[in-house]
Amino acid sequence: MRAYNFGAGPATLPTEVLEQVQAELLDYNGSGMSIMEQSHRGKDYDAIHQEAVDNIHKLLGLRDDYAVLFLQGGATGQFAMVPMNLLGEGQVADYTNSGAWAAKAIKEAKTQGQVNVIADTSKAMPTCVPDPDDLNETDGAAYLHITSNETISGAQWNSFPRTHAPLVADMSSDILSRPLDASQFGLIYAGAQKNLGPSGVTLVVIRKELAKRVSDKVPLFYRYQTHIDANSLFNTPPTFGIYILCLVTRWLRKKGGLPAIHKINQQKADVLYRAIDAGDYYRGTAEEHHRSLMNVTFRLPNEDLEKKFIAEADARNLRGLKGHRSVGGIRASIYNAFPAEGVDALVAFMKEFEQANG
Amino acid sequence: MRAYNFGAGPATLPTEVLEQVQAELLDYNGSGMSIMEQSHRGKDYDAIHQEAVDNIHKLLGLRDDYAVLFLQGGATGQFAMVPMNLLGEGQVADYTNSGAWAAKAIKEAKTQGQVNVIADTSKAMPTCVPDPDDLNETDGAAYLHITSNETISGAQWNSFPRTHAPLVADMSSDILSRPLDASQFGLIYAGAQKNLGPSGVTLVVIRKELAKRVSDKVPLFYRYQTHIDANSLFNTPPTFGIYILCLVTRWLRKKGGLPAIHKINQQKADVLYRAIDAGDYYRGTAEEHHRSLMNVTFRLPNEDLEKKFIAEADARNLRGLKGHRSVGGIRASIYNAFPAEGVDALVAFMKEFEQANG
Repeated sequence: MRAYNFGAGPATLPTEVLEQVQAELLDYNGSGMSIMEQSHRGKDYDAIHQEAVDNIHKLLGLRDDYAVLFLQGGATGQFAMVPMNLLGEGQVADYTNSGAWAAKAIKEAKTQGQVNVIADTSKAMPTCVPDPDDLNETDGAAYLHITSNETISGAQWNSFPRTHAPLVADMSSDILSRPLDASQFGLIYAGAQKNLGPSGVTLVVIRKELAKRVSDKVPLFYRYQTHIDANSLFNTPPTFGIYILCLVTRWLRKKGGLPAIHKINQQKADVLYRAIDAGDYYRGTAEEHHRSLMNVTFRLPNEDLEKKFIAEADARNLRGLKGHRSVGGIRASIYNAFPAEGVDALVAFMKEFEQANG
Repeated sequence: MRAYNFGAGPATLPTEVLEQVQAELLDYNGSGMSIMEQSHRGKDYDAIHQEAVDNIHKLLGLRDDYAVLFLQGGATGQFAMVPMNLLGEGQVADYTNSGAWAAKAIKEAKTQGQVNVIADTSKAMPTCVPDPDDLNETDGAAYLHITSNETISGAQWNSFPRTHAPLVADMSSDILSRPLDASQFGLIYAGAQKNLGPSGVTLVVIRKELAKRVSDKVPLFYRYQTHIDANSLFNTPPTFGIYILCLVTRWLRKKGGLPAIHKINQQKADVLYRAIDAGDYYRGTAEEHHRSLMNVTFRLPNEDLEKKFIAEADARNLRGLKGHRSVGGIRASIYNAFPAEGVDALVAFMKEFEQANG
């Protein structure tokens, strides 16, 4: 039996995708080999690679002046690559600090140049993100960086700032979960392990013009331009991860793309937030206006009850509900691939638990 | 039917490993989840991660002052990370240029500092690598870099230089294929996709002392020290790739480790080189003393025959024999996981082909 996996990432994948991966694991497309055993320059992998690029282009409705890259190193790698590529000597980069992940991006950027934190909601409780209409940009900033969804605090931007500087967003935990105007962004990046596939693949969407800024002191391998020029085949990419990303994005397109998945995501989140708001027993952690559709964070009356809740849920096949070790509480991550029935099962359990322990 | 996959990488994996991966793909260890859907800080993945580290330690007989890291970006990423970490301002790094892969390492190192190419066999024909006893090291060099096996030319170091500076080796295409004295090296790195697992995992073995050299201008994410401190869990590692690496190294330990696999590798290579040397029809590309046990490169009397050879071999389930596009010819990659029966099948085909086309 498949568990209902509320883990924050690496996270649940569509069962039908995993079944396909399993079926063709030792023999892809009649080749007598696993796709992971095949050359990244062979025809089977080439078709996958191109489809994966194409799926991202179509799902995000990207203009031709944007490139889709599949890199390695996760969002944490991008915390470094973004300033290495975009922050020129003597320039300033604006960052918003919306929580733990934004703070990590800021810490790394400071190793590469001058950073101006122009908004800070990292200590706010209930948790929230900055107001997009109230950001005081630095004149001539190289770029402005935001974290579109804070996986730990459960707070999410629901609209994005219109900026002078190129807008750069870490979308690791809400990429492809809702429609957005990609042309508003100079660069979007995301580790794959929440909404795209297994860990080890990093999606980068970049307005090509921006890649030209890079200094020749930056290693070739860490230049976006290198990977744009080579269509992410400068070196051997993580082929098996990209293959799964291809299947996941194919699955998403069949479901109707971003408008359709957004509707499903809203319904799942609504059901869960309604259960939290139904009485005083459960308390949502995020400010109502900034509640994440992906990571639903809440508390029980005390920590002992939280422990008990997590243990009993686990025994009922509701897994991975423990909040991040830095904040405690409960976190239900309900990414694109998380089934609505799992949310219903959690809500039913929440009611029972409150009755038994209220 | 499984193909005999002579591809240079991503390369063939042990069938029994792939069968295990397939069997537990949707439900790892009774968890109701794929291992790729599980937290990198959960107990199932933790056991895999530790076993993988431990297997590498044991197989290479590493001393406690060495760390085993699982990074991302492949050997190409290491071409940059090595000088970023080890080449201080005003210092010189010695490199040997033994062919296409060494040349790439040199090109990237030059973006980071001063490089001295102290031996160059890249244009030699028959192909070969430098003489380890005849290297003219630069006084006070930060390190000396070699490429232990040139995947494209089919030339391999069969002993290693005793150096003053720390010895750094790209072992992507012969890691764990033969016993070696790891204490002779300051740093060893290898992309996983030949002898270790799927692409997307990079093995780094480093004498911990060396990691301390790094300047604070280097991004945190690209410092070896960061990953040593976090046991490769600074960020989400490529968990599924490391899981397969764990199974492959477990398989290798069961086979008897490096002495046992070395014997098998020698036998496979001997059979193939003997077939090449049996007459004048086939011509080995590498100098006899430097012939690779991993990538056996040879030519036929002309390119038309080579094309025909590759096509007919392919039709008999002998796949991936085409030499690298930059050099042409035939290349049979016979890594650890490549079965001896596949070599026998190739040798039988070579005889037939010569009879029909000689």
